[in-house]
Amino acid sequence: MGLKIDMPEPNGGRLVDRVVKKPEIGAKMAAGCPAFDIKPTMFKGSPIRNVYREIVSICYGFFSPVEGSMVREEVERVLKERRLLNDCIFPYPLVFDITEEDLKGLGVEEGDRLLLRLKGQPFAVIDIEEIYKIDTDDLATRTFGTPENNPEVVREPFNEKHPGYVIYKSLNPYVIGGKFFIVNPPKFREPFDRFWFPPAEARKEFKNKGWRTVIAHQTRNVPHVGHEFLMKNAAYMGDTEPCHGIVVNAIIGAKRLGDYPDEAIIEAHAATNEGKYIKPERHMVTFTLWDMRYGNPIESLLHGIIRQNMGVSWHMFGRDHAAVGEFYDEYATQILWGEGIPSFGFEAPPTDVYAGLKIRPQNMQEFWYCPVCGEIAYKGNCGHIDEKQKFSGSFIRGMVREGVFPPKVIMRPEVYKAVVKWWKKFNYPFVNSAYLEYKNKEGEFDLPAMEVSEKR
Amino acid sequence: MGLKIDMPEPNGGRLVDRVVKKPEIGAKMAAGCPAFDIKPTMFKGSPIRNVYREIVSICYGFFSPVEGSMVREEVERVLKERRLLNDCIFPYPLVFDITEEDLKGLGVEEGDRLLLRLKGQPFAVIDIEEIYKIDTDDLATRTFGTPENNPEVVREPFNEKHPGYVIYKSLNPYVIGGKFFIVNPPKFREPFDRFWFPPAEARKEFKNKGWRTVIAHQTRNVPHVGHEFLMKNAAYMGDTEPCHGIVVNAIIGAKRLGDYPDEAIIEAHAATNEGKYIKPERHMVTFTLWDMRYGNPIESLLHGIIRQNMGVSWHMFGRDHAAVGEFYDEYATQILWGEGIPSFGFEAPPTDVYAGLKIRPQNMQEFWYCPVCGEIAYKGNCGHIDEKQKFSGSFIRGMVREGVFPPKVIMRPEVYKAVVKWWKKFNYPFVNSAYLEYKNKEGEFDLPAMEVSEKR
Repeated sequence: MGLKIDMPEPNGGRLVDRVVKKPEIGAKMAAGCPAFDIKPTMFKGSPIRNVYREIVSICYGFFSPVEGSMVREEVERVLKERRLLNDCIFPYPLVFDITEEDLKGLGVEEGDRLLLRLKGQPFAVIDIEEIYKIDTDDLATRTFGTPENNPEVVREPFNEKHPGYVIYKSLNPYVIGGKFFIVNPPKFREPFDRFWFPPAEARKEFKNKGWRTVIAHQTRNVPHVGHEFLMKNAAYMGDTEPCHGIVVNAIIGAKRLGDYPDEAIIEAHAATNEGKYIKPERHMVTFTLWDMRYGNPIESLLHGIIRQNMGVSWHMFGRDHAAVGEFYDEYATQILWGEGIPSFGFEAPPTDVYAGLKIRPQNMQEFWYCPVCGEIAYKGNCGHIDEKQKFSGSFIRGMVREGVFPPKVIMRPEVYKAVVKWWKKFNYPFVNSAYLEYKNKEGEFDLPAMEVSEKR
Repeated sequence: MGLKIDMPEPNGGRLVDRVVKKPEIGAKMAAGCPAFDIKPTMFKGSPIRNVYREIVSICYGFFSPVEGSMVREEVERVLKERRLLNDCIFPYPLVFDITEEDLKGLGVEEGDRLLLRLKGQPFAVIDIEEIYKIDTDDLATRTFGTPENNPEVVREPFNEKHPGYVIYKSLNPYVIGGKFFIVNPPKFREPFDRFWFPPAEARKEFKNKGWRTVIAHQTRNVPHVGHEFLMKNAAYMGDTEPCHGIVVNAIIGAKRLGDYPDEAIIEAHAATNEGKYIKPERHMVTFTLWDMRYGNPIESLLHGIIRQNMGVSWHMFGRDHAAVGEFYDEYATQILWGEGIPSFGFEAPPTDVYAGLKIRPQNMQEFWYCPVCGEIAYKGNCGHIDEKQKFSGSFIRGMVREGVFPPKVIMRPEVYKAVVKWWKKFNYPFVNSAYLEYKNKEGEFDLPAMEVSEKR
């Protein structure tokens, strides 16, 4: 008995930690290995994904219990049942893909260790378990589903307008499966450094803060007041009292033109607590590296796993969670967490199945401004549907573009200032081709210089 | 497994129903019994309690599994352990008390049935199990506790400034213990009639509305916007999504000068949904007859039991719950439901003990108006503590008294109109001596004329 909820255990029971902290040991582990320079996945000349982000998230335990690039059998099981070979839930195939040319050039075989370099420096190694060929069209289609196979939630066949579909479709045809080690840990640049809480650190930090219960919010955007209201109000969910902590976990990765820069997004969220709209002692901003696949219900499983691994008790899921376009039902994620989606392997919600997830959903409706209530009102409460004024991200971006200081009821002045700060640094408030080039070259972190002997 | 919460079973497993619906059967059950006219408990010339309200709440199942006036052994166990003889939790002694003179005049004995009349009509019968004497000073003191015996939460010795203490101290010295039957069901007058949902009816109504999860709010007041915010925001608590229903349960009973009339209180709450600040399909106003004892944590147990019996999943508990003065710690109720109060018999919260309650607490902090946030803000979020503007019930009553239409951010116009409606009927916005006299004479319901034969 007892209604109080403790911090959930990680997915699979324990956190993955595949980061070698001591440089001399990292260098020794990489010694004598053939080396390969990590390259981004490209589509129509633009980088749309970079596998180093997956390596970081795997090795720091965000994706626990995943330990590396999946072998063929595991990819199959993930696509069929959204489970790993050890039965744990995982939604996406994660693979280290390579061209036939590169593979031949390396001359590596199963059983070999391969050194992966990033920005000219040693970064990680992979212990090769299997090398196999994939059908990227098939992989892309099965990852996201089809209206025929997944009629509960898939509304349109996926195509090249969907950025996640494009990522899988654009993979190289060969996969090197095997476990990673990071041999040269990343040094995150400002402003990311102060928001870097890998799962083990996040769990420690929650305990330090005295948080028993925590609710997570997914973001890839600068928060307007509607977002702030979702965060503040979803957090009345709890066990015997509202959640102690509110954690924003920004997904940082490949960008699209017109997005806000990642640097602005993360500092704009911090501005919400710096401005005391949510007390700093109740609010914490963090991030995870991942090139968003926009898989709505599928993506929500990954989000649930990341945040459960961080020690979070609840996850707020709204309408169109991690969605692009109208490929999925707008409530697909809430259907998954509320009832399950049998065609994706979930006869019941992912919390209620064998080896299920321990993070709990808080399925929310939206907020709007209501002039009759005189406040930002919740769809579930406010009956003045003819008077409501919806928040519009593109309307707000339009104001920002014109240099208009948005009204306080739409965007907090502190949040706007964070946007302006990075606008000045990048000479434009949104992602443009100069930012894309910078991001592709520099990423989010630097790697210390490391000498690796060519001999074991 | 499964995170979803079903409607909780009643306290003790099943609802008490001791209401005889067919008048001919009621009349037959009362035939030949000695009759007694129910009288109010008086203090300094004023009625402070009337036992008919307890009889209604017992027989309609609000206080399940209590079935009547307690026998001596049960009163003792309630005072020591806050449990009935059947182990179920119950916080207060409930007794049918009588003067020595009345008892002698009736000439009844254990084993007899006594007819209780109200407003000149047959109302209920009691099957006498035990007649015993009580020490009302001792009863009053032990009901509420003392700083010595209950140091966790009792701050001052109880005295005649406390209305609940006065009720117990003013009881007549003899108790007739035994089970009640209502033989002539009450016909509630307007406006109470449309808010009358005894537990069995409330459960049916929740199911009709499709509510799986419901949160209850205690009230004895006209709602200002701060109250509305407590209701709306506490309701984000839920299982996998915010609560489906918000139930206001008004405690209707003996009044004090300066209170709002019960008629205004209940219609003012309904105005909250009629004005669509909370959609009518999510909000329901109900009431229970009970002369409030203001026992803060002790009273909160009764509130939990009443609303669990009605089928409610959560109960909102705020600061100074059902409190008068500073006899208890202002967070005594949250301490009880969060940690337990060993000196009152609760080594753990009442949900976590043997034969525990099934309703769950939502322990909330307060709301204030924050000019920086530009909204009604929650203490747990808003860090602008120097700028905050607290809601003050007495300030609002002052405005009403002066005929000032309160600003919308303080009281909704629809709520104010409900106050004005009853102000016009009673010629004063608050309880005055004319209202007390009316209330004492008429109560909340009428009883149909019923003929009872003097012979069996």
